[in-house]
Amino acid sequence: MIIRNLKDIRASDRNVKSDGWASARLLLDDDKMGFSFHLTTMFAGSELKMHYQNHLEAVLVLKGTGTIEDLDSGQTHELKAGVLYALNENDRHIVRPETDLLTACVFNPPVTGGEVHDENGAYPAAEPALTS
Amino acid sequence: MIIRNLKDIRASDRNVKSDGWASARLLLDDDKMGFSFHLTTMFAGSELKMHYQNHLEAVLVLKGTGTIEDLDSGQTHELKAGVLYALNENDRHIVRPETDLLTACVFNPPVTGGEVHDENGAYPAAEPALTS
Repeated sequence: MIIRNLKDIRASDRNVKSDGWASARLLLDDDKMGFSFHLTTMFAGSELKMHYQNHLEAVLVLKGTGTIEDLDSGQTHELKAGVLYALNENDRHIVRPETDLLTACVFNPPVTGGEVHDENGAYPAAEPALTS
Repeated sequence: MIIRNLKDIRASDRNVKSDGWASARLLLDDDKMGFSFHLTTMFAGSELKMHYQNHLEAVLVLKGTGTIEDLDSGQTHELKAGVLYALNENDRHIVRPETDLLTACVFNPPVTGGEVHDENGAYPAAEPALTS
């Protein structure tokens, strides 16, 4: 049994900050669960264009408000506590947080924790982890 | 892209109530994400003995307090907001909520939504879904 505490993760190298978001990686690939589980905050006022070509992702909003634009369908959906979006078709999307958006995120396959978004807003497929 | 709202799920047949817990299944096997994602409340005062022999499960506590006893190691861990437990070895365990425990749960492989706990507190492996 694995026991993790968000407070500890946030004080560790499993807490990743980038442009417009910060993510506490509670479970990663090396935990061998077959998925990774992150608590991610997307910051108010940012515009996050993403396209996970190699991963499926589900995101449950726990707190905050914003929108998600589906770049394939052109539709925009409201985000607030209790709304989940799932990128079941590697959907290209833009998240626009109006307030800080606190979210619980699950990735399949699990991320290793070392990935960075590439120029397309994707994480690479299984590659050696980057260290910065 | 899948968009789900917890309020709608709770009013649907994807909301399952059983002895000591209720679970809103935001994502199930038929969503083809490779995992299922549930918002589950375990009720204050209950004693939930579980053993998922066929699934790995991760549980993040969002609200409430309680304990989890690892029946293999004999250890008991405190549960509160921000604590995650992951049953990476199909661990036999007992959850004892002191207050209602609101949790975000991920199962691998995904559950179909029709499973019931058997006499061991397990969900069966891939079997036809039960309808009641």
